[in-house]
Amino acid sequence: MKKILVIHGPNLNLLGQREVEVYGHITLDELNHRLEKFAEEEGFFVETYQSNSEGDLVTKIQEARGRFDGLVINPAAYTHTSVAIRDALAAVSLPVVEVHLTNIYRREEFRHKSLTAPLAKGIISGFGVSSYLLGLRAMLEEISR
Amino acid sequence: MKKILVIHGPNLNLLGQREVEVYGHITLDELNHRLEKFAEEEGFFVETYQSNSEGDLVTKIQEARGRFDGLVINPAAYTHTSVAIRDALAAVSLPVVEVHLTNIYRREEFRHKSLTAPLAKGIISGFGVSSYLLGLRAMLEEISR
Amino acid sequence: MKKILVIHGPNLNLLGQREVEVYGHITLDELNHRLEKFAEEEGFFVETYQSNSEGDLVTKIQEARGRFDGLVINPAAYTHTSVAIRDALAAVSLPVVEVHLTNIYRREEFRHKSLTAPLAKGIISGFGVSSYLLGLRAMLEEISR
Amino acid sequence: MKKILVIHGPNLNLLGQREVEVYGHITLDELNHRLEKFAEEEGFFVETYQSNSEGDLVTKIQEARGRFDGLVINPAAYTHTSVAIRDALAAVSLPVVEVHLTNIYRREEFRHKSLTAPLAKGIISGFGVSSYLLGLRAMLEEISR
Amino acid sequence: MKKILVIHGPNLNLLGQREVEVYGHITLDELNHRLEKFAEEEGFFVETYQSNSEGDLVTKIQEARGRFDGLVINPAAYTHTSVAIRDALAAVSLPVVEVHLTNIYRREEFRHKSLTAPLAKGIISGFGVSSYLLGLRAMLEEISR
Amino acid sequence: MKKILVIHGPNLNLLGQREVEVYGHITLDELNHRLEKFAEEEGFFVETYQSNSEGDLVTKIQEARGRFDGLVINPAAYTHTSVAIRDALAAVSLPVVEVHLTNIYRREEFRHKSLTAPLAKGIISGFGVSSYLLGLRAMLEEISR
Amino acid sequence: MKKILVIHGPNLNLLGQREVEVYGHITLDELNHRLEKFAEEEGFFVETYQSNSEGDLVTKIQEARGRFDGLVINPAAYTHTSVAIRDALAAVSLPVVEVHLTNIYRREEFRHKSLTAPLAKGIISGFGVSSYLLGLRAMLEEISR
Amino acid sequence: MKKILVIHGPNLNLLGQREVEVYGHITLDELNHRLEKFAEEEGFFVETYQSNSEGDLVTKIQEARGRFDGLVINPAAYTHTSVAIRDALAAVSLPVVEVHLTNIYRREEFRHKSLTAPLAKGIISGFGVSSYLLGLRAMLEEISR
Amino acid sequence: MKKILVIHGPNLNLLGQREVEVYGHITLDELNHRLEKFAEEEGFFVETYQSNSEGDLVTKIQEARGRFDGLVINPAAYTHTSVAIRDALAAVSLPVVEVHLTNIYRREEFRHKSLTAPLAKGIISGFGVSSYLLGLRAMLEEISR
Amino acid sequence: MKKILVIHGPNLNLLGQREVEVYGHITLDELNHRLEKFAEEEGFFVETYQSNSEGDLVTKIQEARGRFDGLVINPAAYTHTSVAIRDALAAVSLPVVEVHLTNIYRREEFRHKSLTAPLAKGIISGFGVSSYLLGLRAMLEEISR
Amino acid sequence: MKKILVIHGPNLNLLGQREVEVYGHITLDELNHRLEKFAEEEGFFVETYQSNSEGDLVTKIQEARGRFDGLVINPAAYTHTSVAIRDALAAVSLPVVEVHLTNIYRREEFRHKSLTAPLAKGIISGFGVSSYLLGLRAMLEEISR
Amino acid sequence: MKKILVIHGPNLNLLGQREVEVYGHITLDELNHRLEKFAEEEGFFVETYQSNSEGDLVTKIQEARGRFDGLVINPAAYTHTSVAIRDALAAVSLPVVEVHLTNIYRREEFRHKSLTAPLAKGIISGFGVSSYLLGLRAMLEEISR
Repeated sequence: MKKILVIHGPNLNLLGQREVEVYGHITLDELNHRLEKFAEEEGFFVETYQSNSEGDLVTKIQEARGRFDGLVINPAAYTHTSVAIRDALAAVSLPVVEVHLTNIYRREEFRHKSLTAPLAKGIISGFGVSSYLLGLRAMLEEISR
Repeated sequence: MKKILVIHGPNLNLLGQREVEVYGHITLDELNHRLEKFAEEEGFFVETYQSNSEGDLVTKIQEARGRFDGLVINPAAYTHTSVAIRDALAAVSLPVVEVHLTNIYRREEFRHKSLTAPLAKGIISGFGVSSYLLGLRAMLEEISR
Repeated sequence: MKKILVIHGPNLNLLGQREVEVYGHITLDELNHRLEKFAEEEGFFVETYQSNSEGDLVTKIQEARGRFDGLVINPAAYTHTSVAIRDALAAVSLPVVEVHLTNIYRREEFRHKSLTAPLAKGIISGFGVSSYLLGLRAMLEEISR
Repeated sequence: MKKILVIHGPNLNLLGQREVEVYGHITLDELNHRLEKFAEEEGFFVETYQSNSEGDLVTKIQEARGRFDGLVINPAAYTHTSVAIRDALAAVSLPVVEVHLTNIYRREEFRHKSLTAPLAKGIISGFGVSSYLLGLRAMLEEISR
Repeated sequence: MKKILVIHGPNLNLLGQREVEVYGHITLDELNHRLEKFAEEEGFFVETYQSNSEGDLVTKIQEARGRFDGLVINPAAYTHTSVAIRDALAAVSLPVVEVHLTNIYRREEFRHKSLTAPLAKGIISGFGVSSYLLGLRAMLEEISR
Repeated sequence: MKKILVIHGPNLNLLGQREVEVYGHITLDELNHRLEKFAEEEGFFVETYQSNSEGDLVTKIQEARGRFDGLVINPAAYTHTSVAIRDALAAVSLPVVEVHLTNIYRREEFRHKSLTAPLAKGIISGFGVSSYLLGLRAMLEEISR
Repeated sequence: MKKILVIHGPNLNLLGQREVEVYGHITLDELNHRLEKFAEEEGFFVETYQSNSEGDLVTKIQEARGRFDGLVINPAAYTHTSVAIRDALAAVSLPVVEVHLTNIYRREEFRHKSLTAPLAKGIISGFGVSSYLLGLRAMLEEISR
Repeated sequence: MKKILVIHGPNLNLLGQREVEVYGHITLDELNHRLEKFAEEEGFFVETYQSNSEGDLVTKIQEARGRFDGLVINPAAYTHTSVAIRDALAAVSLPVVEVHLTNIYRREEFRHKSLTAPLAKGIISGFGVSSYLLGLRAMLEEISR
Repeated sequence: MKKILVIHGPNLNLLGQREVEVYGHITLDELNHRLEKFAEEEGFFVETYQSNSEGDLVTKIQEARGRFDGLVINPAAYTHTSVAIRDALAAVSLPVVEVHLTNIYRREEFRHKSLTAPLAKGIISGFGVSSYLLGLRAMLEEISR
Repeated sequence: MKKILVIHGPNLNLLGQREVEVYGHITLDELNHRLEKFAEEEGFFVETYQSNSEGDLVTKIQEARGRFDGLVINPAAYTHTSVAIRDALAAVSLPVVEVHLTNIYRREEFRHKSLTAPLAKGIISGFGVSSYLLGLRAMLEEISR
Repeated sequence: MKKILVIHGPNLNLLGQREVEVYGHITLDELNHRLEKFAEEEGFFVETYQSNSEGDLVTKIQEARGRFDGLVINPAAYTHTSVAIRDALAAVSLPVVEVHLTNIYRREEFRHKSLTAPLAKGIISGFGVSSYLLGLRAMLEEISR
Repeated sequence: MKKILVIHGPNLNLLGQREVEVYGHITLDELNHRLEKFAEEEGFFVETYQSNSEGDLVTKIQEARGRFDGLVINPAAYTHTSVAIRDALAAVSLPVVEVHLTNIYRREEFRHKSLTAPLAKGIISGFGVSSYLLGLRAMLEEISR
């Protein structure tokens, strides 16, 4: 059974509680639940993790080596500022899919740049919670080859 | 029955015949076939269109108004240079999903900029042919709400 | 009798049908009609042309040589991206007036740059349909000297 | 009867006396005269004002509130450097038309940027003295709606 | 008794009369009144001055030498464009506090740059009329040391 | 009784112990003491928090929701680099005042840019410890309206 | 017998009819004639093609695969703006020589950048019609190895 | 007898009274006196003028036409910000020499750019009061040819 | 006996386990061992520390004051993004040597910029594990003076 | 008999001995030999010169005046850095052809800029040794007119 | 008797022989003669030196230490490119005056930047040969203090 | 016995004689002596070379091929401007270590860029004379593998 780690970056613990007109009403728990249900349906294992700390995210990514088959990550704010997460993604020899709730091209100029994207297999952005589900699908296909 | 128009930008007619290590071995006909088969399975109608001409792509987008429920577009090279296609996407009041075969963040600097992306609901890039299938899924969900 | 060619760039065929809060309710046919009526009143001949294709616009500009006394052009999206139209305007030895429906300084940064403007006698922007009428007036005065 | 204030920026008092190959042979007095004659013909009132001082121009713009129906302004050199005039135009709740004798896109790079233009309804540049007359026409139409 | 000069830059004479949603309903007279009342309460002398002219502001700053103990200045539009006011602030050997009614980081890009700020002891922005009162407090503390 | 959270960013725990010619001789404990004494005098409650960790600061800001009426923050080094703190400030629906001990316009170029300032009501910089006291005053006024 | 396709970009159909002080007096027909005569002399086959349309040029380049041994192209205005032609040159597995009538380093800044040049074997510019003849020589040598 | 106008820009009225380590101990009156004495010795007439106002400087420059044979100007702060003074220098058909007390290349980056210098015959900077005397010499030689 | 603290930044815990063609086969434990052995030979004390967390690195640097004679640091990814570590290095009054395993000038553009380097005595990069040993040598010499 | 000077810039003395996969196996002596043989065949005189010194190259270019009919130069590294060679080419009133062994558009960004190219009649790059032969042909044609 | 070294940079040996409309008709010998005559008149010693080689100029500047009282230099093309000459000027503890025949602000953008100017006492440009004479005067005054 | 060439760039011949507070009191002769003594101790051969001429440095580097086992170079000013030295380093197939006396990150912005560094194995800067000794150590280790 394939194992996928889903990592949520900073402030995603507030999902559904803040700026709902931007990020939607679903909470992080509910989102994780949907991902788990999807995993069950599709016959794979999913683990989820959230942290506001760049260092903890780096460590979590490092630990995925040998324990997971793929990484789906929404680096949130760290997408645009973290060379450390970029380096962690380069170090861990796993396929990576980057997802975003919002279309980053519609937001501030500084969000158009992604330090992490060149390390990903592909990127999915703008579909809210569905970005995660589509990301899992893409990952499944990738690791099933 | 929902109707979705899939538009392929310049040089995509050579799919499977050129730079296969970058774009894969599937041809445009085979890709369109898979999209149609997927549409059949999921119960929607898909029409496909390819052109190398910026003007023809603008016109095709314009004509989608009132005839389709959504637009999945891979603007290819025009992603980075065409204000005309951007304006056409703004003019046609339809949901748009932008897809790319490759991860544009791994390519030349000038491909990191997207003129069309701010007009799309969301963007999917880097998964080869699967970018299209994921894009259709995202569109279906969008227009089913 | 003086002859003036009015050229409408990409997406202007949708005038009055799209984003009416930005571009107004008048259609391209109605606009052309008004221009013709104005020509009749002022005693000159006007021909109108619209295309979404950069190449066709280049060709049309080229063909104006020897057949028209002046060119009023709204290059729309191509204002900001087309060196080819700029070169065509340089090649055809006719006075040119550039017009825009909207005030391009109020729009996105990339619309503030104009590749075609240095080839024009003058520019009129921001007055909606009146930009064309003022442009024709300016052209008449220019070619009557 | 509609009242329009026409404001001339720095160095326009030298009109017709300097660089005539660039700005033409008409003097500022003659230009103002033509504007007044045009006003008479079209049935509106025009007042003209010139100053080399940024501060005086700011004050004059401020005083136009409640006393005029519209502002036609050629900010000349201050177009490219004055945030104060921009703020004055924003403060006075009147329609504004910006005019220029020359086509600023044909001149030095630093003249391509306009701080004042985003505050104007529209811009007319490059037609010499006719820029003013066309600007008055545009203003009349605007304030007659 | 300490003496503080408060200088208001261009367009601040319109305070309370223009764009009240941005700058509030209080007029410049009322603001000056509040500053004077605050001075009375705190036991210092305040003089206020407003001008739309860069040159007059330079001169007023120069004249403060030997006559005042400190300068509270809202350079408004000149914050971003005036090297002359910067040089005047450098020339006059007095402590300076720069204040702004609005948070300049929320406004246009060109307002993020301040030519005058490096000459000030400190900067207070975004609190409307309170920016001035806080600025006077900061100045009092500075000159009481 | 109003409750205000004061957050100190990285390296502020060394206050009074390092670079005293830049930051002054008062220690963080003494500073917090003064803030508490000020709160007592003015009749509100203040809690203080310091961390060198971006992630901890993000979490602390998130937790302020529903527990405090306002946030006074000196993001220190993270002012210029942290999109995560910016997003946290956007997520928590509380008024924010940003304070700095030093005048950031007098320091290195990269300190002139603030990622967090657009999320604040206002900014106070350059007055050393007084920046905090002025910030609390500004906040009190804001939350008393 | 080697077969070489010579492609002329936009506005080159006006050769000899426009701006003769820049581009010379020879017409496109005469130029093509000279190329054919040169081919005859040197014992290879040459086909020529001109279009103002970016899309048509893309298609023509694509069609050269398998039918020609090399491509000599003067992309004219599209040199500086067309990613689509660049991609077409990358897709077609043929040697490419880029030629220009004028020395692009002597012209406007935006003409110094070439999107197509990195796809060419080499570039020849500034020799007028001779640029083509030298380009054919270079190509012959290249494909004769 | 040749007549030369010497114009001093903003803040130069404080010469000798401010920042003497930068600008020296001589006052403006003493400087003007020295210029007059030099004129007497060399047999020409010199008039001096100082203003803090950009507009007044523009007007003074304009008025020099027909009344003076040459202009020696130290635009001070306006060197870097005033297009209006640049335009005035262009309008008045007189030889211009630009002088600076300090070496502007040793000061802030924004002082390295000069808007007025392209309008001058030559520039002399860094020699304190001697910059003026050398400037007068250069001007004399220029107008004696 | 001199005491030196060696600090390893993010992802260096993976040394020898990841991208060995870039970073070599030695693990962090082995590296630390070699540093300790070198210290023993040279007669000084070395302590090593690694963290993925920017905040923890800041705190560790702060705590070195009074406890160590010098700091050898490889800030890794934080070299390019951390103002907080830069400020910590400025706050701690100790000599600092910056080391890098790889030659950062051979890597991505964004790695050429170093926020921390101006706070170091010197920098050694590109010699793999030897960068550390050379760094210790340099530090020893520095603190032995 | 026409006389052409061929100048080789720095490091070209190593031709055929270094980086042969980039520059080919032919040595400078062999190259010069081929150029001389070509000259003999075509009936003109060629002299060749190589230097690693910018100053010597400047002097050699200067000395060509009156002694040669044209200059074929490969400035190599100095193409991108030498204003002195540019000025020498401007000073000597001879036709110049610039040649490069490699296609500079395929190399580092800083090699895309050419300081010398605007002084040349035309540029030929990317054809290895043939760049020189084509350059001689172009020169012959130029000086035979 | 004061001794001044005058250094002429690259291509100045061609003075009077090239581009006379830019640089004038006087030759370098004649110029040096005039400088010597001026020295004789004013009672100081002048030595002149010209080289096209950056290295020779560096060496000459170095050798001036202890042998001359001041340096007048026209670095010509090296003004804009030579850090080595800048460093030599910094190393030699002599007053330096930089002179230019032409007004560098009227020439290409890249000539507006001066690497050497920050090392000079002052700069004189635009007065042709007189720039040297004025430079010697300025130097005399400087070294006579 | 291994042979290493140490190359000193421009102005290093003045070592110990100029700006001793920046570069220290040791002269170039003394430095070379120390390097030779170090070589003797460590059992390798060292040759030293200094030149102010870019061309001579290029030639010296070229000649090192086949005669030395490694190159330690301090390109000094040419670090930031010389593509020719960069190309020479690329041409000579020897390991290179770049050294600097000072920490270039603490100096002017233009010294942060290094054209030569990408060609070096590693870089050591900021340790004065020790930079050379550490560089020799690093080189020894490199060539002993």
